[in-house]
Amino acid sequence: MGRKAQHRSALLRATQNLLRQKGYLAMGVADILRASGAPRGSLYHHFPEGKVALAAEAVRVEGETVRRHLLRLMQDHPTPEAFFAAYAARLGAWMAASDFRDGCPLATVMLETASEDPPLQQAGQAAFASWLSVFSALFTHGGLPPEAAQRRALQSLAIIEGALLLARVQQSTVPLATLIPACGRLSLDAA
Amino acid sequence: MGRKAQHRSALLRATQNLLRQKGYLAMGVADILRASGAPRGSLYHHFPEGKVALAAEAVRVEGETVRRHLLRLMQDHPTPEAFFAAYAARLGAWMAASDFRDGCPLATVMLETASEDPPLQQAGQAAFASWLSVFSALFTHGGLPPEAAQRRALQSLAIIEGALLLARVQQSTVPLATLIPACGRLSLDAA
Repeated sequence: MGRKAQHRSALLRATQNLLRQKGYLAMGVADILRASGAPRGSLYHHFPEGKVALAAEAVRVEGETVRRHLLRLMQDHPTPEAFFAAYAARLGAWMAASDFRDGCPLATVMLETASEDPPLQQAGQAAFASWLSVFSALFTHGGLPPEAAQRRALQSLAIIEGALLLARVQQSTVPLATLIPACGRLSLDAA
Repeated sequence: MGRKAQHRSALLRATQNLLRQKGYLAMGVADILRASGAPRGSLYHHFPEGKVALAAEAVRVEGETVRRHLLRLMQDHPTPEAFFAAYAARLGAWMAASDFRDGCPLATVMLETASEDPPLQQAGQAAFASWLSVFSALFTHGGLPPEAAQRRALQSLAIIEGALLLARVQQSTVPLATLIPACGRLSLDAA
């Protein structure tokens, strides 16, 4: 990897970490440069529109990382029941290991910016849509018709996001262990 | 109300708004003073520990406001089905009216700070626990035994928080309308 490409990935990694730790509004360009070690010129070379473009690309990369993680988990645990049990255990281990600092890598930045910054909004929408597709495929493989699979996917994503927030608030894995495995078993009445 | 008490409530109102709009980390003391019109001395008079103590009190007040709102809604809609249908409609109307800027008044600040600032963490925990109590009472009145009512309360709060995040990301009331009414109908298998 050439130095330019190295700077680009260092900028992205630093931005991903800062978005997760502090969110978008409290993240300054100076923070990104300090954490990445990249020169200011390289930020504007790779991301001429500056912080918002860099953050949108970081959101896209995070979304893709999570999507690939979900796909691997689905290969190992192909039924909804096995998948959500394994996912709850993994999220619980991550959150406990980070002293409940980790969580959804996109939730904070989306809550801060989804209504304000179209590039971030679009990147976030695409990321969440790609996760919903994985969950839909999981429920379809589990035998549900497409519409029911999509409804269950939306419900599961909401429960996961809500459980991650509650785990953070309660500083406990109990919400994850109580709520997420049930996504593989919940029956949702037809609306 | 004397001038001192007026300053205190102006400081709290400004902090509540800023926490909702920007979160905690991006909110500076200068922002709070500008938005409240209160003098710097009054902030440290009422909140000697400064920004963190003011934010913790704002979280406590927001938590209590939401709790009272939930209790009133429960008086008007005493069954779980009627309650969650009405709540979904109300949240949808609020979010649409705010152009999807509003949402849970505590989610952003909790995601940012729950692992870092004990006063904020405790205030947030107490707020979420008080909302869970309302939902538990609702399900208990609906005929569930206490343990099942508590499990349904936790599940409902996770779904509501997740649905509010998804509504923000998708800039749409669809996640609220799809997911929240089902809280009154969902059957959760025994874990």
